[in-house]
Amino acid sequence: MTPHPFEAAIALSAQSDDVWQGHTSEAYGNMVGPFGGVTAAQALNAVLQDPRRLGQPIAFTMNFAAGLAHGPFVVQAWPARTNRSTQHWIIEMRQGDDTVATATAVTATRRETWSVNEVAMPEVPPPQEVPAPARVGRVEWIHRYEMRFIEGALPSKWEGAQLDNSRTRLWVRDNPPRPLDFASLTALSDVFFPRVWRRRATMTPIGTVSITVYFHAGEAQLQRTGAGYLLGQAQAQAFQNGYFDQTAQLWNETGELLVTTHQLVYYKE
Amino acid sequence: MTPHPFEAAIALSAQSDDVWQGHTSEAYGNMVGPFGGVTAAQALNAVLQDPRRLGQPIAFTMNFAAGLAHGPFVVQAWPARTNRSTQHWIIEMRQGDDTVATATAVTATRRETWSVNEVAMPEVPPPQEVPAPARVGRVEWIHRYEMRFIEGALPSKWEGAQLDNSRTRLWVRDNPPRPLDFASLTALSDVFFPRVWRRRATMTPIGTVSITVYFHAGEAQLQRTGAGYLLGQAQAQAFQNGYFDQTAQLWNETGELLVTTHQLVYYKE
Repeated sequence: MTPHPFEAAIALSAQSDDVWQGHTSEAYGNMVGPFGGVTAAQALNAVLQDPRRLGQPIAFTMNFAAGLAHGPFVVQAWPARTNRSTQHWIIEMRQGDDTVATATAVTATRRETWSVNEVAMPEVPPPQEVPAPARVGRVEWIHRYEMRFIEGALPSKWEGAQLDNSRTRLWVRDNPPRPLDFASLTALSDVFFPRVWRRRATMTPIGTVSITVYFHAGEAQLQRTGAGYLLGQAQAQAFQNGYFDQTAQLWNETGELLVTTHQLVYYKE
Repeated sequence: MTPHPFEAAIALSAQSDDVWQGHTSEAYGNMVGPFGGVTAAQALNAVLQDPRRLGQPIAFTMNFAAGLAHGPFVVQAWPARTNRSTQHWIIEMRQGDDTVATATAVTATRRETWSVNEVAMPEVPPPQEVPAPARVGRVEWIHRYEMRFIEGALPSKWEGAQLDNSRTRLWVRDNPPRPLDFASLTALSDVFFPRVWRRRATMTPIGTVSITVYFHAGEAQLQRTGAGYLLGQAQAQAFQNGYFDQTAQLWNETGELLVTTHQLVYYKE
């Protein structure tokens, strides 16, 4: 059986205790280099694969220092501190002698406590009632996701716009469907197209500078979610002199908030 | 003239190119150890003071790996990658041989572009019409900030509650007032008491695990803001099995969105 393209994309081979080798994925290619969500998943995967790992990821921040060239890379990941129930990781990704990304991760063993979603899933039609877009994307990676836009799809005309908000809501899952895990949830956190395109319908060059993912979901919630759809919602808070932020949520179909995530994105004009 | 207590708190002395020595501040003491906002400001200050620094901070993430003991610490900060207009920093804070915090920062030279606040400042009474709390805090650091709560103050009775949201709005500035800079803006990003206390009025032990600050403000906006008040707003999105998130915004009095910030916080029960 051919492995799922995501499996192949995030595969790493151990070089030493701290160092892993991987390769960018053509299947997740972007306009220039690879889709950043998969690059982030590759970096986190070095932690996920590490036998020294304590618990599950709860917080992950990735800073994109340079566009990756298609080809091999190494990930160096080491636990800077291990406590009784939490562990703190520093991660660097390199191509040749150049650092292309820096990251940190926190993993933890979790136990049951009082819990509540404060931000309820918005009321939206179920995925089966939202048409899948027929549009053929200009970049390869978007074919790896089934995106059913409820609100705020990619503009159909790039003629400028004066929208008063940048919000997008969509049902999304891996294509073909694949049981959710922490690596794929990381990639899905970056699935939203840039808010500046939505807000302005102007095709300005962009690039994610930093993304942070908070994992509210533990293993049990991932298993309950399986290969089902996630409801994604993303919106900017500020666009200011070359950088905007994007804040986003991912719920599973039963309304459990699995992830809250934020990113800072460069835009040219 | 005595320096402002914040000045004294974040002071670092250079040990080598990458290494700085500092000391926790009793003036910003918390229940156990120091106020995390000042610890974050100390770590960022190693970047701010570094002659190699390119531009201004745009993104900063700090992971608290252990409670700091009152006493000296070292900050090691190095530029892992320097591009034409951005620079990527890795930062570790240590006490003795132990890593107590890990962090990353991105700095950048900014230029003027199309800009807009998507999240407008909420309509609230001006700071002069909001009473300053007379309450004497149980921890030292809160005396270093003038906090005028508009909504969602610290519960006056710890008898449990069934609130449906955790939102706080307040006017806040350094006490005594001090012209805003990137270090103080970092500390102010952590000024909100834990959302779980607000939501439940139950005094469960908490601790910030990770905080991310996106600086929308550049130097010009900091100068325009001066020693004025900031409107702070904070709210949780999810409380789940020992960790909750908190998303927050800081505007200046004229409604410019200076910072959006997020954190993940441990809570015991």
